Amino acid sequence: MDFAVILDPESPTPLFRQLSAEWRQAVLTCRFAPGERVPSTRGLAELLGVSRTTVTQAYDELLAEGYFEARRGSGTYVCRELPERMLHARPGARKPETPPSNIRLSAYGRRLTAATGRRADHLAAHKAPAISFAHWTPDPRRLPLPAWQAAMTRALRESGPGIFDYQPDPGGYLPLREALASHLAKARGVRARAEDVVIVNGSQQAIDLSARLLVDPGDVVAFENPGYRGARLIFESWGARLAPAPVDSQGVIVSALPEEAKAIYITPSHQFPTGCVMSLARRLELIEWARRTGAAIIEDDYDSEFRYAGRPLPALQGIAGGANVIYLCSFSKVLFPGLRVGYMVAPHAVLERVKRAKWLVDRQTAWLEQVALAHFIADGHMASHIRRMRVSHGARRRALMAALDKHLAGRVRVMGDAAGLHVLIELLTDLDEQEVVRRAGEQGLGLMAASLYYLKPTFPF
Amino acid sequence: MDFAVILDPESPTPLFRQLSAEWRQAVLTCRFAPGERVPSTRGLAELLGVSRTTVTQAYDELLAEGYFEARRGSGTYVCRELPERMLHARPGARKPETPPSNIRLSAYGRRLTAATGRRADHLAAHKAPAISFAHWTPDPRRLPLPAWQAAMTRALRESGPGIFDYQPDPGGYLPLREALASHLAKARGVRARAEDVVIVNGSQQAIDLSARLLVDPGDVVAFENPGYRGARLIFESWGARLAPAPVDSQGVIVSALPEEAKAIYITPSHQFPTGCVMSLARRLELIEWARRTGAAIIEDDYDSEFRYAGRPLPALQGIAGGANVIYLCSFSKVLFPGLRVGYMVAPHAVLERVKRAKWLVDRQTAWLEQVALAHFIADGHMASHIRRMRVSHGARRRALMAALDKHLAGRVRVMGDAAGLHVLIELLTDLDEQEVVRRAGEQGLGLMAASLYYLKPTFPF
Repeated sequence: MDFAVILDPESPTPLFRQLSAEWRQAVLTCRFAPGERVPSTRGLAELLGVSRTTVTQAYDELLAEGYFEARRGSGTYVCRELPERMLHARPGARKPETPPSNIRLSAYGRRLTAATGRRADHLAAHKAPAISFAHWTPDPRRLPLPAWQAAMTRALRESGPGIFDYQPDPGGYLPLREALASHLAKARGVRARAEDVVIVNGSQQAIDLSARLLVDPGDVVAFENPGYRGARLIFESWGARLAPAPVDSQGVIVSALPEEAKAIYITPSHQFPTGCVMSLARRLELIEWARRTGAAIIEDDYDSEFRYAGRPLPALQGIAGGANVIYLCSFSKVLFPGLRVGYMVAPHAVLERVKRAKWLVDRQTAWLEQVALAHFIADGHMASHIRRMRVSHGARRRALMAALDKHLAGRVRVMGDAAGLHVLIELLTDLDEQEVVRRAGEQGLGLMAASLYYLKPTFPF
Repeated sequence: MDFAVILDPESPTPLFRQLSAEWRQAVLTCRFAPGERVPSTRGLAELLGVSRTTVTQAYDELLAEGYFEARRGSGTYVCRELPERMLHARPGARKPETPPSNIRLSAYGRRLTAATGRRADHLAAHKAPAISFAHWTPDPRRLPLPAWQAAMTRALRESGPGIFDYQPDPGGYLPLREALASHLAKARGVRARAEDVVIVNGSQQAIDLSARLLVDPGDVVAFENPGYRGARLIFESWGARLAPAPVDSQGVIVSALPEEAKAIYITPSHQFPTGCVMSLARRLELIEWARRTGAAIIEDDYDSEFRYAGRPLPALQGIAGGANVIYLCSFSKVLFPGLRVGYMVAPHAVLERVKRAKWLVDRQTAWLEQVALAHFIADGHMASHIRRMRVSHGARRRALMAALDKHLAGRVRVMGDAAGLHVLIELLTDLDEQEVVRRAGEQGLGLMAASLYYLKPTFPF
């Protein structure tokens, strides 16, 4: 237990009195709690580089004044019964410290309004309902916990001290990147070697790194409308002017995209939140648009693992041969969000900078989790978990559709039921959306309002 | 095993021929390796939403052409002996794919030159020497591995599914923040409640978040000269103009700081790389300077845990009562770098934005590690590890000083031996520094050249 104080040997006040004054302050401001043991005189003398006599004199004073109490054979403690009035504030009842500060924030800092943190509130609010349709979390009861714990334990046990050091490659653990490159080539048609994959902290960091490398304040970024709010807040934080890109049942309407856009953020496998799957024709059209305008396609391959009807379409990245596409995905939906592991693939010049930026911003993603993931995939747990979840999600989806058909036929229209973890329900009534969500909440049913995902046009065109 | 392809039912080419063409391409471009098993006809038919007959017809064609081979009773495989000339490239011998791209980078992206990643090379280069004086890694043989593995295993075992979800508070795991607030108050004089501590991915992310919130391109940031290169690269990546702040044995010379600086980055506990400890007088002077100019003090409390002489001085944050100081530290030196857990404390308005930015950039730091750290600290392992390491580092330091005194007396001057994990050795000779480092390397002795840490003045004043 350390106790760092400033003692001034030049001062006319003796050292022991300086020390006892510091202790009084420490006790009064609750830096030490009532009943807490204080350091031994020997230990504190060594720590402060003063004589033991100095500390003993200070302690004697504090004992006499009732700040400290001695217990026979067991040392010295902060007095348990300090007079109430002595304490400026009690632990747990202290007012928030908001020290004065005249720091000037950057434009980025000023753009971070309270609204930026709003999703955290949603999250908290949506923990409560008995039946939750929150879209961001797989059913916690179906997580493959024993297999995951075994993979983590194995990674912990097998790893030498090297795993606890900085890793030389900020791109991530190579066996995991090899497994991903192989999976992405076969399942998603993505063209990437292991070295072309970079492991990051979830798709959130992938989007942030993409925006960092592409967006200057004032740049136009085309953004699906409605679209994924988590991404939107990132682009806005970088000062992008978001151009709403309208979406129909085929995906983004490419002919409506602004020519001056520097990038487009897109969720083609299962558009968030409409749930539509981008058609091949639109994919080809978008790739041609990007080639012509020099825009980057930021392809968030969200929800690509779960399809219930129709054929899987290859990722834009593969169709485009990698050109102009930054491909990203994460394990949040397929495994669990708390894992915070995602990955990205990008054209060479961009990818090199992604790695440099990753090294600058936090060096590397949690390594043990990467090793465990590589085991988890190699041992077939990932594939069998996805298979099980595909069946489970499919059954839930059928139950939901049957219930909607039975109870609300003609009053709702369902979109996005061919893939992924959510559907969008359009109310064919005059009921106010917020009111429906509120009343469902009262019945223990957690719904998300889609209005949250519509852009107020920040960039008119 | 998935195989995503585009089949067009409108095309005049039959589906099975489209499928076999896709397979040929997949084999020729090594998306499937020779000898690899291919999906069953039933599985692929389901996946693609086509009839099983379509797949069987395609497979028959591929078997006849020698792309596939059947093995009795065990399914269909990519032929092991594909004619060499058929393969565009062989696995492991493929050229790097550098897909064409006309993406335009942001100013941030353009600033990320190859030099940004240079420290990774140093790291790799310094793995080799028999005796390494690399400053960034505690001795791997002295890591408290069993205790850490036990803490991680306990966190894994005791955690319910909740730990695998998003956490509502981007500030981090509250019991860990409580332990840190208590430790920081006692050992470092830092004024912070648990809610005022934010857990981030090492001090690297703490510095990046600070720069993000404070620095606009062109802003002047005062920077110790010499100073910590890892931080310098971050500020430069944000477009800061670094004003070299000269350092003497008392720390930064406050009177030499530019009035227009928006922030100063500083390592007062053990200045990197000179190793000097900032005096109390200078601390008070710096706090007054910040108050007057409105500059932020970014206090990197690097190496504060290990002191071998003199009294510990409280952190600037505590002396300033929290005003204008962003305090940051990490577990990289005290535990191990691969942990990627650090923490920061900041004035209220800044801290709220730190949390918002943290939520935007990657939601949260690896949670399991945070739970394990809280156990590790509560069980006393952290305190006893620091005690052991203080003794161990002290003994090594004495051995080094004795050896320098015995063999190089009068030819070197040693700085920074009162604290921390490194010393700076000034050569009182005409020898070229790079040459000394190179020749030491040949003898199996890893030294770091200090010249790397000097700023070339980018901002004249």
